[in-house]
Amino acid sequence: MKVSIRVLPPGRDLKLKVGANLREALIESGMALDSPCAGQGTCLKCRVQVSGVSQKLTALEKEKLTDEELRDGGRLACQVTVEAPGEVSLPKIEALRAKAGLGLLGEEIPLLPNVRRRHFELGKPTISDQQADWDRLADYLEAAEPGPVTAELSLLRSISDRLREQDFKGEAVLVGNNVAALDPPGSTEDVLGVALDIGTTTLAAGLVDLDSGKVITLDAELNPQITFGADVISRILYMQESPEKRSQLQKELVKGLNQLLLRLCRHAGRARERIFEATVVGNTTMLHSLLGLDALHIAVAPYVGGLNRALCVPAGELGLQIHPRGRVYILPSIASFVGADTVAVILATKLYQADSPRLAIDIGTNGEVMLATRDGVFTASTAAGPAFEGGRIKYGMRAVRGAVSSFQAVPSLDYTVIGDAVPRGICGSGLIDLVAELFRAGVLDRKGRLLLPSEAGPSLAAELATRVRARGEDREFVIFRDGEAEVTLTQQDVRELQLAKGAMRTGIELLMKEAGIGAGDIRETLLSGVFGNYINREKAVVLGLIPPIPLERIHFIGNGAMDGALRALINMEERTRADEISVQVRHIELSGRPDFEETFLRHLALGE
Amino acid sequence: MKVSIRVLPPGRDLKLKVGANLREALIESGMALDSPCAGQGTCLKCRVQVSGVSQKLTALEKEKLTDEELRDGGRLACQVTVEAPGEVSLPKIEALRAKAGLGLLGEEIPLLPNVRRRHFELGKPTISDQQADWDRLADYLEAAEPGPVTAELSLLRSISDRLREQDFKGEAVLVGNNVAALDPPGSTEDVLGVALDIGTTTLAAGLVDLDSGKVITLDAELNPQITFGADVISRILYMQESPEKRSQLQKELVKGLNQLLLRLCRHAGRARERIFEATVVGNTTMLHSLLGLDALHIAVAPYVGGLNRALCVPAGELGLQIHPRGRVYILPSIASFVGADTVAVILATKLYQADSPRLAIDIGTNGEVMLATRDGVFTASTAAGPAFEGGRIKYGMRAVRGAVSSFQAVPSLDYTVIGDAVPRGICGSGLIDLVAELFRAGVLDRKGRLLLPSEAGPSLAAELATRVRARGEDREFVIFRDGEAEVTLTQQDVRELQLAKGAMRTGIELLMKEAGIGAGDIRETLLSGVFGNYINREKAVVLGLIPPIPLERIHFIGNGAMDGALRALINMEERTRADEISVQVRHIELSGRPDFEETFLRHLALGE
Repeated sequence: MKVSIRVLPPGRDLKLKVGANLREALIESGMALDSPCAGQGTCLKCRVQVSGVSQKLTALEKEKLTDEELRDGGRLACQVTVEAPGEVSLPKIEALRAKAGLGLLGEEIPLLPNVRRRHFELGKPTISDQQADWDRLADYLEAAEPGPVTAELSLLRSISDRLREQDFKGEAVLVGNNVAALDPPGSTEDVLGVALDIGTTTLAAGLVDLDSGKVITLDAELNPQITFGADVISRILYMQESPEKRSQLQKELVKGLNQLLLRLCRHAGRARERIFEATVVGNTTMLHSLLGLDALHIAVAPYVGGLNRALCVPAGELGLQIHPRGRVYILPSIASFVGADTVAVILATKLYQADSPRLAIDIGTNGEVMLATRDGVFTASTAAGPAFEGGRIKYGMRAVRGAVSSFQAVPSLDYTVIGDAVPRGICGSGLIDLVAELFRAGVLDRKGRLLLPSEAGPSLAAELATRVRARGEDREFVIFRDGEAEVTLTQQDVRELQLAKGAMRTGIELLMKEAGIGAGDIRETLLSGVFGNYINREKAVVLGLIPPIPLERIHFIGNGAMDGALRALINMEERTRADEISVQVRHIELSGRPDFEETFLRHLALGE
Repeated sequence: MKVSIRVLPPGRDLKLKVGANLREALIESGMALDSPCAGQGTCLKCRVQVSGVSQKLTALEKEKLTDEELRDGGRLACQVTVEAPGEVSLPKIEALRAKAGLGLLGEEIPLLPNVRRRHFELGKPTISDQQADWDRLADYLEAAEPGPVTAELSLLRSISDRLREQDFKGEAVLVGNNVAALDPPGSTEDVLGVALDIGTTTLAAGLVDLDSGKVITLDAELNPQITFGADVISRILYMQESPEKRSQLQKELVKGLNQLLLRLCRHAGRARERIFEATVVGNTTMLHSLLGLDALHIAVAPYVGGLNRALCVPAGELGLQIHPRGRVYILPSIASFVGADTVAVILATKLYQADSPRLAIDIGTNGEVMLATRDGVFTASTAAGPAFEGGRIKYGMRAVRGAVSSFQAVPSLDYTVIGDAVPRGICGSGLIDLVAELFRAGVLDRKGRLLLPSEAGPSLAAELATRVRARGEDREFVIFRDGEAEVTLTQQDVRELQLAKGAMRTGIELLMKEAGIGAGDIRETLLSGVFGNYINREKAVVLGLIPPIPLERIHFIGNGAMDGALRALINMEERTRADEISVQVRHIELSGRPDFEETFLRHLALGE
């Protein structure tokens, strides 16, 4: 059964299925609705006003929306199930852009992009002014450019017709010093850019209006390379098998990016062909793979990749479907395991200008740790593995509908499931909560062993421990059970999390040691990464993932890598700064250190 | 029947057909034999020493070779018909290069090329030096370069393997600031460049060793576009018919260039893939066609082309088969009818530094006239048409075997035929000789009318006039007749030459007028063009093609456009100078002038 929903703006009547998720239904109908968390209920950006449609508020809405918002019919579209006819007011696009354009850290980025629109009005050729068409345009543009302007053959091949059609007037779009397009005079066609964050597991994209510097929308997608291996090492080994496989992975990645761009642009009602530049961050393996470079030497000692410098490549050479004369700008990396994504986080967090110690942690398949001090920024890369993203966990899954995303054992057992659905698995934030709470409640000991009722001490632990099922040495904690369907946390899952947590904490400890500071000296700790937004600070401390730091000094910054990529897209000075960061930051290679193993073993244990 | 000929160096025994032309037979067998005139007997570069082979010296050999050379068995290979077994000593390659490297004007060009070989020895990566491969190389090279170095994806994709194979040492070949190749350490592989002169009728190429700056060999070929129209206007009209036809002409031209390069390299025993840069000159229509640009507006008022600036394009984008990362550098043009070939002639002749008036004439399908004065260089383009190249002439042909190349009527009728063969037609120099001599002898009147014996005055003229055949108003002068075979000069041929000569002389007169000087002020007149080398100075003056200037002030400079293209290949400063020339030279548009028609009509007449 379908019901009629009027959507404002633009004032369109949609027929939506009863039972459909409002956010998904709107996006499928082509409405621009910003929802970077893809419906997980965490970004809080899909706020709409409804009348009719649905009466049932979810617990999340009650918690996150103010009384005033609720009184005005405020809802989170991702939480709304379509039940009845009604009206939906979308957030005003301008307000949305302005907000997103502040950058994820809330600071406005001054507009100084590499892509610029330049109006031109040329004198028309006469018998006494026979300057050739391109020379005429180039002379005009160069009067206000720092150096010579250039053009590709494809533009030169059409310039004579184009200038005459437009009566020698128009709007030139420059990418750097290259004239990429000649629009008709007074054209208001979009001039867009896109920031891309290529993660081992997740591809994220942010679409930007480069006339205004505002972020239009953000979206994310699974990295399709995932079918060729969950982590960078398995991808590198796959690529190494043959040049064809290297090329295959490159094409898969670009295909994924193109699909993401297609969806991003369709939802925003923009044309991919009007994207003139992409800035790209990611770990070095992903960047090598995007470029089709040999990544073997990243993985074998002494861990030296093909390229860490920034690089500008024609989009067509990579197969990226933006403007045919668009460019791809890849930000510099620091070292083989400290990629451009880390440089971007440092850009976003301004760690480079720290005057008292600040710690930043980018949580992903590889965990990057950054420590800013008066003496500069130190970084280390830790092989956290895919546990935080649900990898190698029996019921692990990404943070989508059906995932247990938070958990508490004290005072009583309770958990939340994304989309208020029946639990299907556990995502990263749920995993941290589970292990931290079960440890706090005494169902897990310091060594990470799941205890049976007979082994668990206090009564609370003993009660919870009744959910621990033992089959020989295999133990698992039953979170949810309904007939055949169940979700459990296995002993092996706890071990995986211990390895991930131990690796990351070791990185933090060794960086502090290198910089000669203790946990008490750290003024601020920043958690970055798509996942970094959702973890419970307190539980991360309980677990020992981060050192014992007062909670008010721990902040979530969202996807800092994306924020940095956006900065580099919107402001050229950020690119210069990225270059400086990439050479100035001190990368500490953990695997070569004598104190690595001892520190790692110590931090495998839960708690402090 | 074949005979055995031993060739030194390299000491190979060839079986050559009796009756074959020695030059052609050697080249077909892959011997490096420099012969830029393609066997016309004019460049005198195919000097060889023979013993046996052939006893019969031609008149040209007797005239051009010294007694000493003749005593030592000196011959011009292009004049030798293989008759008997024997031995041929080729000119020493080194001597040949050194000579050619002097430039056609005899001046050594200092070596400052855009393509450079740079030795590198990098520190090997260790756990304490983890710089990425490309960063490592780029840092090393940048220590001695003025700016950042770059690399294309194709090189970056192989850099890790390559550096390890070569133990992080080798020879980098840079084209500008782009690393195009990484050769093994101590490599002596060629680093080559090629200069291309793209004429409407003729393609010429000069292969250069960029390690030494020496010209290795020169060669020429018909422009295959000739089947689509003899002059630039007909090519432009063809291109205009459809984008496919524009693309077809581009491909035909590049195919012709690739064939020329293939032959050039095969004869020189070099690899096309080791050519890293091509410098290109030509008229603007040919340059537009090479680039696939719209050339329509060159042909219609106000005569404005798509591009006159210098341009650098990846060879692959044009389809030119040199190194896959090679570049094509197109020199700048001055105006729609004054192309980069004229800029190159000005480079070669150093007209830009004249302190007393000098005149240069580049003779081709379009005749470019340059006049250097203290006030700068003036140029004009004249639509000479293809007459000088044998076009629109009944028995017109290029200067190849069988062409009447010189003619005299006084004191008695005599002519020479290229290759000492039976006459088959008339080439440009022969045409000028014929008209000048018949005019001087009184068989042509000032208006260019062929006279019958009854109309011709003096006895000599009357005798020659018996060769004039009249059929109604159609008259023709019979040069040669043998049964059915004959070669004649028709009344229409004379008209065509008058038009060509009138156009060119009008250009000269109007430039002198513009500069405020007379013929007597001209210190030197330079004749350029493949064809410019072969015309008889005296007869050109008799004809009125050039103003009455003492013969000792008239010099042939060979293909000045090729010389300029070579300069730009060997020395970067010449490119800067070419840019200056292209904007500083004052182009005088003849068609717009009120005095054009009167001057042209006056100079249609023969003589002064």
